[in-house]
Amino acid sequence: MARPASVRIVEVGPRDGLQNEPGIVPLDAKVALIDALADAGLKMIEAGSFVSPKWVPQMADTAEVLGAINRRAGVRYTVLAPNLKGLELALACGIEEVAVFTAASEAFTSKNINCTIAESLERFTPLIDLARARGVAVRGYVSCALGCPYQGEVPVAKVVEVSEALTAMGCYEVSVSDTIGVGTPDKAQAVTSAVAERIGLERTAIHFHDTYGQALANVLACLDIGVASVDSAVAGLGGCPYAKGASGNLATEDLVYMLNGLGIETGVDLDRLAAAGRAITAALGRTPASKVAQALAAKCA
Amino acid sequence: MARPASVRIVEVGPRDGLQNEPGIVPLDAKVALIDALADAGLKMIEAGSFVSPKWVPQMADTAEVLGAINRRAGVRYTVLAPNLKGLELALACGIEEVAVFTAASEAFTSKNINCTIAESLERFTPLIDLARARGVAVRGYVSCALGCPYQGEVPVAKVVEVSEALTAMGCYEVSVSDTIGVGTPDKAQAVTSAVAERIGLERTAIHFHDTYGQALANVLACLDIGVASVDSAVAGLGGCPYAKGASGNLATEDLVYMLNGLGIETGVDLDRLAAAGRAITAALGRTPASKVAQALAAKCA
Repeated sequence: MARPASVRIVEVGPRDGLQNEPGIVPLDAKVALIDALADAGLKMIEAGSFVSPKWVPQMADTAEVLGAINRRAGVRYTVLAPNLKGLELALACGIEEVAVFTAASEAFTSKNINCTIAESLERFTPLIDLARARGVAVRGYVSCALGCPYQGEVPVAKVVEVSEALTAMGCYEVSVSDTIGVGTPDKAQAVTSAVAERIGLERTAIHFHDTYGQALANVLACLDIGVASVDSAVAGLGGCPYAKGASGNLATEDLVYMLNGLGIETGVDLDRLAAAGRAITAALGRTPASKVAQALAAKCA
Repeated sequence: MARPASVRIVEVGPRDGLQNEPGIVPLDAKVALIDALADAGLKMIEAGSFVSPKWVPQMADTAEVLGAINRRAGVRYTVLAPNLKGLELALACGIEEVAVFTAASEAFTSKNINCTIAESLERFTPLIDLARARGVAVRGYVSCALGCPYQGEVPVAKVVEVSEALTAMGCYEVSVSDTIGVGTPDKAQAVTSAVAERIGLERTAIHFHDTYGQALANVLACLDIGVASVDSAVAGLGGCPYAKGASGNLATEDLVYMLNGLGIETGVDLDRLAAAGRAITAALGRTPASKVAQALAAKCA
């Protein structure tokens, strides 16, 4: 399988990133971030989450954020919806796509969403049915695809099974997620390949955290099998909720830099993207966790 | 070309790393670092540099360091020797291997060592002749192999030409060095492959800085063409002298983690290695610039 000519980057900084930051960012900064990401050329932006503000206070203002951003034509804004109520809130905001989240590890769903994997999928049924009835696309995350903070190893067959179930229920794409960033390239490629063989390459995305510094190498290994949908977060927003102080998401700047070097089209303007990352990390009181952003800033100094 | 079954890691932290740190580390901390690296299983350790202390004060105590370390059987300790005088100092310390340093960029050698590439090679002739007469191995660095801070693009043919010249003069290995970390995987592979075709894969090493976060992906691309000698620095020691505040060397911990995941033997104990990195960065008053080290520390906390 040849490398893709272009990659769709799913920018998860405003959701998966900010959700895992210790600080709470003001509404204005979130809106400015999302608008800056769209200006930088990102076409798919995960803008928030309709989860309980009791559990995730960082996302409590998602409806306000969606009301305040300048929605660009050609940009898809998506939110995480854990259940039917979350979807209804998203629909009220005029959202065209939602994401649902489960895992390939029973230990993880048990601790994280207090149910079995099968139960988590059952809960999505009415959600996905309503979404489809309303013409709203649904994207699925399969967490712990390369390892679990509680049970360690996760069988490839389980990742494939859950991915297939999500697809059968109506998800147009499944993101194979290395939630704790433990994967290395051969494993990332093998698991992603196994999923792609079953659900189709065009439905297979990857979401690799950089906790052990492996994310970009893992992406490279998956580009080599043709994967063309990659999740990342500007400025490497978000830490690892299972290892305080460790790195979280792959930085979009570092991903775009590599893809530019490989001649793979993204449509993203790297300088604008880096500026968006500098602005949001300034609001968080820190510097971007992107080496490209650090190098560009050092050059300017 | 298949991936190698094992990789020789050339640990450059005590030299290329500490040389580019703003602080000067006490003798004891350097000795403890080098001994800890040997204890962790590293078989090749660049321990210092016999350059002028006027230019590189961080390396002024190299002779004392070499006198104080506990030299393990089976571990090769090497130093950078810019000229005949440097080699003589190294010989007096009973060193079995030295490294010489030039570049594939005329702009770089002009600014950095005040001569043309050809002149830099000429200066090495008496050094390499004496080294070989004394049975001391010589390793060559070709800096700016993937880009230059002054001239930008560097022709592949120049990298190959300089590598070939060093080999012809007697270097047993040449390290293709991305001094400013601008390379991306295809380019890293193409340049390294061009060098290996001319001088032989068994003489070809890689030294990729992580300034733009690409180093590990670049290493992966070169493993795929069979490269089996890789430079890195524990804790990502060293910044980028051409971009203050930017990242420097690839962290050995992150490299070992990837190689472990790929089933490629290194002989290195990752926990001991990470402990060595924590100790030296504590002496520098900072935390390790290795995501693996950060993740392992976060787990402990």
